[in-house]
Amino acid sequence: MKDNPKAFQEFYSNDFSHCYGCGTNNEFGHKLKTYWDDEETVSKFVPRPEHTALPGFVYGGLIASLIDCHSTGSGSAALYRIQESKSDNYPRCVTASLKVDYLKPTPIDCTLELRGKIKEVKGRKVIVETVLFAKDEICAKGEVIVVQVPDDWKAK
Amino acid sequence: MKDNPKAFQEFYSNDFSHCYGCGTNNEFGHKLKTYWDDEETVSKFVPRPEHTALPGFVYGGLIASLIDCHSTGSGSAALYRIQESKSDNYPRCVTASLKVDYLKPTPIDCTLELRGKIKEVKGRKVIVETVLFAKDEICAKGEVIVVQVPDDWKAK
Repeated sequence: MKDNPKAFQEFYSNDFSHCYGCGTNNEFGHKLKTYWDDEETVSKFVPRPEHTALPGFVYGGLIASLIDCHSTGSGSAALYRIQESKSDNYPRCVTASLKVDYLKPTPIDCTLELRGKIKEVKGRKVIVETVLFAKDEICAKGEVIVVQVPDDWKAK
Repeated sequence: MKDNPKAFQEFYSNDFSHCYGCGTNNEFGHKLKTYWDDEETVSKFVPRPEHTALPGFVYGGLIASLIDCHSTGSGSAALYRIQESKSDNYPRCVTASLKVDYLKPTPIDCTLELRGKIKEVKGRKVIVETVLFAKDEICAKGEVIVVQVPDDWKAK
């Protein structure tokens, strides 16, 4: 399924690996991992019992967070492909806007799967459509605009 | 400032108080508390160090989660006012759609303030505009459509 055994987030530079949603260096966070699956991107996540909204279902903030980090990762991977960088690190993206439609309650007692499509790449900006599945049903749909972090971010 | 010493979330029924973002019964969660301030709604939240995106800034998933729970709480309070319910409990809302524009990086070393405006109430649906301030600057803007949970939810 994966054309690379490492997740996108493992290609972020050490300085950009602190995110609660997806940073490999954040010991308390979700450590979301995203991979290519042909032209789509895929992440999986198992919610914990405390990630409840109403009993039995995942809270919307977690869903937004997963869609967000899945999409920034997808945008980074898409830019890395296009930019033909000589660096081993993926460019790091942040979110400009996040839109999530909650289509039905998301059950908490299963693995959630996020699947993303790269809809547009324009310069340093990427539009990603990310769908969240639970038990093979689409429970939420996201459209996320992500932007590559400026090269001089560290100096700011 | 507050016209009631209890937060909106303290008026949710016990069965609807489990949310990671705002449930008073969720021992691991954020326990967001929202109040009226004249015709606006207000919540405050202090992010923890692990809520990082890039070093020094709050991760977008937390911002989305805070805007989400602030808005469901605001919708519940707005409906309670209008419905003139005889119950002590506020109606519980869930999110139909969430849109967040991230206007600038949100610093993590301060109290975040969320302020909401009720833009529209139509039947069981409420549209809430919620702005997130950090250090007196607007860092994110949300528009959230929330819907009152069906009365027979527990029976499902």
